[in-house]
Amino acid sequence: MLLATTTTPDRATADAIASALVEKRLAACVQVSGPITSVYRWQGAVETSEEWLCTAKTTVERWHDLMALVQEMHPYQTPEIIATPIDQASEAYEVWVRGEVSAE
Amino acid sequence: MLLATTTTPDRATADAIASALVEKRLAACVQVSGPITSVYRWQGAVETSEEWLCTAKTTVERWHDLMALVQEMHPYQTPEIIATPIDQASEAYEVWVRGEVSAE
Amino acid sequence: MLLATTTTPDRATADAIASALVEKRLAACVQVSGPITSVYRWQGAVETSEEWLCTAKTTVERWHDLMALVQEMHPYQTPEIIATPIDQASEAYEVWVRGEVSAE
Repeated sequence: MLLATTTTPDRATADAIASALVEKRLAACVQVSGPITSVYRWQGAVETSEEWLCTAKTTVERWHDLMALVQEMHPYQTPEIIATPIDQASEAYEVWVRGEVSAE
Repeated sequence: MLLATTTTPDRATADAIASALVEKRLAACVQVSGPITSVYRWQGAVETSEEWLCTAKTTVERWHDLMALVQEMHPYQTPEIIATPIDQASEAYEVWVRGEVSAE
Repeated sequence: MLLATTTTPDRATADAIASALVEKRLAACVQVSGPITSVYRWQGAVETSEEWLCTAKTTVERWHDLMALVQEMHPYQTPEIIATPIDQASEAYEVWVRGEVSAE
């Protein structure tokens, strides 16, 4: 399983991506949190922006389709779409996640 | 080492789980954050709930006992109890974590 | 790539570390979030503190220098400085991260 994340410039985009990922069974569940402050370099200067974070619980098999949908819905040209591995999980939770993302 | 997480329906449950994990030396420290919005499918419809997030720093050796205690204290039948690997850490911090979870 | 995190006792320290990591090209971007509640053991009792979280997107090659700078700027003697692996990323985002941290 994977913990897949993206950051968005506003709450509405985060909510829309979260709902779409669950609706299309690309994630079993998604958590939306924020606002957070993003710090990055832009045209040589360090800038900050307010952002929102989506954290999706999914499987390796669904990663490419999840990434494609986030890319399509995201207003940035190069959004952060990354995933860290879920190495351990309670057995019942893993069964639930795999059922949610493969039931269509 | 592992970064183990669970989400709870309220702040009080998150605080109680965090305290119990540290008290019983199943985690060296736990961070509680929220509220966050969880998006998931329930009876065919996409629903949202407010939740709180616990993030525990622990070791692979303590994972099963940590999972069992969270399961026992958690009001959900199938709570999210997952862990991602900690691949890198400052040496002093790792020594501290390992000491905290094995000192009883 | 790595997702490197540290927690700080106040917002100003988190902001200063985030800016310095981006300025010195030790991270492509850093997110600051909080306040969160940290639960830990101190002199035998379970204590809580308010903290702030920095999450940095970087590469394995930059980990040691990132860790050294956080250690130098951090007010704690044994700060949490850890990293989880980024196993998947959109190709364009990975190209951007690698460019940001190696461009000096």
